[in-house]
Amino acid sequence: MGGLSEADIIDCLSSGYPARSDVKLGVGDDGAVLTPPPGRDLVSVLDTINEGVHFPVGTPAAAIAHRALAVNLSDLAAMGAEPAWASLSLSLPAADAAWLEDFARGFRQLADACGVALVGGDTVRGPLSVAVQLIGFVDPGRCLTRAGARTGDLVVISGTPGCAAAGLRLIDSTAAAAEPLRKAFLWPTPRLALGQALPGMASAAIDISDGLLTDLGRLLVASGVGATVDLERLPLAAAAVALLNEETALALACNGGDDYELCFTLPAAAAAELPTLASRGGCQLTSIGRITAGSALDCRFKGEPVAAPESGRWSHFDGEQT
Amino acid sequence: MGGLSEADIIDCLSSGYPARSDVKLGVGDDGAVLTPPPGRDLVSVLDTINEGVHFPVGTPAAAIAHRALAVNLSDLAAMGAEPAWASLSLSLPAADAAWLEDFARGFRQLADACGVALVGGDTVRGPLSVAVQLIGFVDPGRCLTRAGARTGDLVVISGTPGCAAAGLRLIDSTAAAAEPLRKAFLWPTPRLALGQALPGMASAAIDISDGLLTDLGRLLVASGVGATVDLERLPLAAAAVALLNEETALALACNGGDDYELCFTLPAAAAAELPTLASRGGCQLTSIGRITAGSALDCRFKGEPVAAPESGRWSHFDGEQT
Repeated sequence: MGGLSEADIIDCLSSGYPARSDVKLGVGDDGAVLTPPPGRDLVSVLDTINEGVHFPVGTPAAAIAHRALAVNLSDLAAMGAEPAWASLSLSLPAADAAWLEDFARGFRQLADACGVALVGGDTVRGPLSVAVQLIGFVDPGRCLTRAGARTGDLVVISGTPGCAAAGLRLIDSTAAAAEPLRKAFLWPTPRLALGQALPGMASAAIDISDGLLTDLGRLLVASGVGATVDLERLPLAAAAVALLNEETALALACNGGDDYELCFTLPAAAAAELPTLASRGGCQLTSIGRITAGSALDCRFKGEPVAAPESGRWSHFDGEQT
Repeated sequence: MGGLSEADIIDCLSSGYPARSDVKLGVGDDGAVLTPPPGRDLVSVLDTINEGVHFPVGTPAAAIAHRALAVNLSDLAAMGAEPAWASLSLSLPAADAAWLEDFARGFRQLADACGVALVGGDTVRGPLSVAVQLIGFVDPGRCLTRAGARTGDLVVISGTPGCAAAGLRLIDSTAAAAEPLRKAFLWPTPRLALGQALPGMASAAIDISDGLLTDLGRLLVASGVGATVDLERLPLAAAAVALLNEETALALACNGGDDYELCFTLPAAAAAELPTLASRGGCQLTSIGRITAGSALDCRFKGEPVAAPESGRWSHFDGEQT
């Protein structure tokens, strides 16, 4: 492993985290000992990202670490939870000190920004793969789920979906306008502040990491409802429209994936709260449709029924952009 | 993915678990919602096993699942914790329904036997790899750690270390006597009952999945002490001695790894409790040495100082048996 012992690797990965008083024993024993906050529930998430599947070969180490943590933070955001403790399992074909320091820095920067302590995990030999498990806190009965959307609710999304997928397509572009798109792919921002503002307001929520229409479809199934989405309302990034074209940008907004934005439903009576939610969430919020009776996900463009745009998504199981 | 959708895979993996009243929301949303037991601490562990590194290509799917869960249960056992909630992240190159059902059965059987509910995780495309995260409960102040061994304490091990490594060497053997050794490798038994019997008795504990001397060395460093181990006291499996030879069996007992037995230290005043602990733990316990002042791990054979036997271990970072 390039002269690095397992202890060197663990030291590199685990140093520099702020202390949390609820971590009685962190990295370095057979397990971490944690004191849960009295009277709160825990939200637990675990997601793995693999090289060549979830990120291209050659992605900077810090961006890989950021992504591995961000995808899990995004899941916590979708549940309305406050992140607390992370565990990291890193599979590496070989350990290069510079790579590892870059990785550790990327993980630590995002963890610090979110108040998350790294409490455990392991480092093993294998193809490059990063599994992160996160535990967050939520008040009992205040957790957001995919179920709960009701007929007449607004369908709302955060940010500008499709940016990450556009950034992945333009990963080797030299155009300056591609930079914010690449950044959206490489350095996604989980919507934690928004997620924590939604309990008591939103009726259901999901993160749209697998693509807006795919994930909205899951929310509809869980809630036992349908929806109509007005595609012309989807906020497209100007750079994606300029560098790809409007049709592609729209398809990526619908199905591109990797955005880590939230899609939630809001009772129509609370529609006036959208600007407040956007302010508390620190992000753009756009109402793109309505929950309907039945189970269909109907797309319209300027009032006319249209087929859902063809998938432009990076399928985790096909491993190809289709 | 062989005709299986991600939903099929999730259904296959997550069905058939007993309900736990502390699981408010299990598999199927962005995260699991869990209610921690009031007044107890949590112990969190996360370990990944990779094909070709931690288990040979061709290992039965049920045994892979069993191992992935067992290695984490063993870590909880070493902390004296009671296992509760598991999350599973499964990377698969392709999804075969029969393989997946076999895997799900192996995971469920061990989880059921330990009262563990599967609450979440993900399934992704990639080289065969299994990450399991477990959360267990422990009473505050009763957690076992690697620190705490004191000069004069007995060094005690459970079971017959070396069996798993012998089983791996004999994985293709047709000898009937190899079967229990292969079973020790393929179907390791985490020492949960023993681990839960140790708080208040043992001064320190560790699981010896990386090999007895390696892991005992970690316990000594964490405790700031040394130890003398009498190698002739190591309980060797008769089958390992017969099929390999005594020297090899001893080397594997010292450094073979993959045993998932516990090594713990016991104040000499509590030595008389060993039979009770063995009975409560449901396993053989053997005192193999003493904690000493200083920091050295000294091996003796019938009273004479000897070098530690050469490693026979499966190194996770070298990937070879050296």
